[in-house]
Amino acid sequence: MFAVLCGALLMLAFEPGAIAEQKFQYAIKEFSVPLDHFSFLSNESFNIRYLYNDSYVDKANTQSPIFFYTGNEGDIEWFAQNSGFVWELAAKQRALVVFAEHRYYGKSLPFGGDTFNTSKPEHLAYFTVEQTLEDYALLITFLRNGQQLPVVAFGGSYGGMLAAWFRMKYPHIVIGALAASAPILQFPGLTPCDIFEKITTSVFETAYNANCSANIGKSWKAFESLAATDAGKKRLGDMFHLCDPIKNGDDLNKFMDYLEDVYGNLAMVNYPYNSSFLAPLPAYPVRQFCYYLKDLQPNDTELLASMASALAVYTNYTGASKCVDYKDSNSGANYDSYGWDIQTCNQMVMPFCANNSDTMYRTSTWDLKKYTEKCYTKFHLTPKPYDILLRYGGRNLEAASNIIFSNGLLDPWSGGGVLRAPNNQVHVIILPEGAHHLDLRQSHPSDPASVMDARKKEAAIIQQWIQDF
Amino acid sequence: MFAVLCGALLMLAFEPGAIAEQKFQYAIKEFSVPLDHFSFLSNESFNIRYLYNDSYVDKANTQSPIFFYTGNEGDIEWFAQNSGFVWELAAKQRALVVFAEHRYYGKSLPFGGDTFNTSKPEHLAYFTVEQTLEDYALLITFLRNGQQLPVVAFGGSYGGMLAAWFRMKYPHIVIGALAASAPILQFPGLTPCDIFEKITTSVFETAYNANCSANIGKSWKAFESLAATDAGKKRLGDMFHLCDPIKNGDDLNKFMDYLEDVYGNLAMVNYPYNSSFLAPLPAYPVRQFCYYLKDLQPNDTELLASMASALAVYTNYTGASKCVDYKDSNSGANYDSYGWDIQTCNQMVMPFCANNSDTMYRTSTWDLKKYTEKCYTKFHLTPKPYDILLRYGGRNLEAASNIIFSNGLLDPWSGGGVLRAPNNQVHVIILPEGAHHLDLRQSHPSDPASVMDARKKEAAIIQQWIQDF
Repeated sequence: MFAVLCGALLMLAFEPGAIAEQKFQYAIKEFSVPLDHFSFLSNESFNIRYLYNDSYVDKANTQSPIFFYTGNEGDIEWFAQNSGFVWELAAKQRALVVFAEHRYYGKSLPFGGDTFNTSKPEHLAYFTVEQTLEDYALLITFLRNGQQLPVVAFGGSYGGMLAAWFRMKYPHIVIGALAASAPILQFPGLTPCDIFEKITTSVFETAYNANCSANIGKSWKAFESLAATDAGKKRLGDMFHLCDPIKNGDDLNKFMDYLEDVYGNLAMVNYPYNSSFLAPLPAYPVRQFCYYLKDLQPNDTELLASMASALAVYTNYTGASKCVDYKDSNSGANYDSYGWDIQTCNQMVMPFCANNSDTMYRTSTWDLKKYTEKCYTKFHLTPKPYDILLRYGGRNLEAASNIIFSNGLLDPWSGGGVLRAPNNQVHVIILPEGAHHLDLRQSHPSDPASVMDARKKEAAIIQQWIQDF
Repeated sequence: MFAVLCGALLMLAFEPGAIAEQKFQYAIKEFSVPLDHFSFLSNESFNIRYLYNDSYVDKANTQSPIFFYTGNEGDIEWFAQNSGFVWELAAKQRALVVFAEHRYYGKSLPFGGDTFNTSKPEHLAYFTVEQTLEDYALLITFLRNGQQLPVVAFGGSYGGMLAAWFRMKYPHIVIGALAASAPILQFPGLTPCDIFEKITTSVFETAYNANCSANIGKSWKAFESLAATDAGKKRLGDMFHLCDPIKNGDDLNKFMDYLEDVYGNLAMVNYPYNSSFLAPLPAYPVRQFCYYLKDLQPNDTELLASMASALAVYTNYTGASKCVDYKDSNSGANYDSYGWDIQTCNQMVMPFCANNSDTMYRTSTWDLKKYTEKCYTKFHLTPKPYDILLRYGGRNLEAASNIIFSNGLLDPWSGGGVLRAPNNQVHVIILPEGAHHLDLRQSHPSDPASVMDARKKEAAIIQQWIQDF
């Protein structure tokens, strides 16, 4: 499956428009960090951004907690607005709230507009997990200003991975971490490469009825049949309102990659209420999507027509979209998805594959050699697929403490999550019907009981860490 | 105190001749490691050496332990020959024994003979603790060859610091660490800068009688008085059998730095039997040394004459030495002490100071600014005095587990050691009359009860770790 490399299967496909909705307030500050923390080669530095709100802090308390969000692959304001639980808990615990922006994302670019210049290898060289964690360690040390304060790390998705790893490597800096939907096991040799696809398939199978995933599974052949002729290609473009026409097999593949990406995204954000995290969507969008595919279609034409209607749930729920920009994630203009593409080509080597016989996806295999070649062609980077395992231990988490791993079982990323606690100082919280880090989001009247319960447990554990401090 | 920067106060002043005594056998192997583990800038690699002995291993046991010595500042063969406890315990536990050579020491030089070329900043840039720990993590991963095996880290002095930090950062790779005489708290802000000098003074005060340290304390003025004239300088050279004459104040300072260095070394290797770790020495060398200074001398001449006799205990116990090479550690030919000098100028910033009123040392202050300037002049390096604190947590060790910190209270480095356990998974073993990592050495009939007891405890704890695995 080359979707990841093609930029299609991002962990979070960032929609810049989403920040518009400003629920939470903060000052935006900057902090200087060394470009390279781990050598004595250069003294270069640059600024990362962080969001800062001390309005909840009890000024009389000399040991006020700090809630520190370990920013991930996107503009940090977007994460701040979509992580309401951090704010709600900060109000209760009277904590200072800080959201730190990950280097190479948002406005935290080490070489400004020239950061992603792939002809300058030194520009991308320091775009790693370890450098990022050091940024956060330095920023917290600065914020503590010499005081001993209880700092709790928070993160969702890749940000959750960072929060967990941060606690593992810097337990003297953070007393604990909430790692929501953090697939730290989604790496070579740790998890079967088709688990994401299997979970997504199961979500589509059960959202309305089983015809949904069956229709999707059959659609790939239908797309190929239709696109075999020029007239068919044209019809495909019209039927799906594509911005760019399907001109050849490469375009068709990109479109099908895009669809697989949409299915993963829909499963991730299958929230119980309207949301606009990855796209403006109705409540339970997979169910809405599958409503249009509830009947087994008699022929390719009707199947694809139904699919076009279903897809509009994701691409045009507001009715404002003019066309489907299936090539968008390759444009390079959206630095955030571009950034994640780069990380998948250095350390974030997550194998994906699928078999069309037991998933709704196209059959694809995981081929590290081809993957590596593509990374080199695209970014002049040679992936290190075992870096993460070497440094963070894979499934060997016995020595970890004070980490909450929460996972929704209907989240495709839960397959790479920690679902069994290695010891009694690591907490595993399962949300049977939860999507991607639903627990990290702001409370909502439509929240199911399991997410309310999860948040209660998380709050109690975090309060205990602070008390024990 | 500029002694550290002058190369005088090394943690271990390496004597290349000491390897001659080959008590323990091994194969010498090489292992390729990346020059820079933490960026995607270069793909360069080089070989580190390691010593390998599988003769104790029970071939029928598929989970044989690995005893892994995390090599420190010197040729790894030297450490292998001076860490007999590792071998003795390996024989009992039927463990594979590996001693890994630290990058930039011995024959593990990334740029061969050009490694220490200070006009090439990229040559010294990767001479750090973190890069070294990654070398060891990769080597163990290679040695395990895909199997889950109980690996225990061992180290003494700086090697003990590495063993402790290795367990903290890579608990998934080593099940525990014996950190013998590891001064992980000898860093800015953690420990008073005169603690090393105070402990050394106390060792000299109590070894024979208190006149010893009193005589040393008075000697500095006597040296200065004598060296005030050319005739006096000449007489000083003759009296102390110096290889290079004292020509000026700079030479005199170097000689006095050298003496302070010798006092620290004598206290470190104040072993209960003849040894040749830092120099060929009699049993309890401080007592021997102080025997010559047991009377309060009436005048400078007699004081210095007695000191010359005392010094010969360290410099010429074998009678084979022609002269005292007090400038030796600056020659640059001895890469090992040169290497440590470099580390004190990047991360190993250990503040030292003394007051002549309450120690036998000259009065000196800790001045980070001057220290930094000297480092830049010497190696084009700007020290990062807070790197170690940021990464390894200083006194905040609550999250650590499965580490034994052993310290002899008569070891000057014990002042920077961990003497109080942060929790019940970290073990502190105190040897009241022990010198520098005496417990790590081979058993000897003259071992005091406390060291035999310490080794028994260490063996039991390590056996428990292996059983729990």
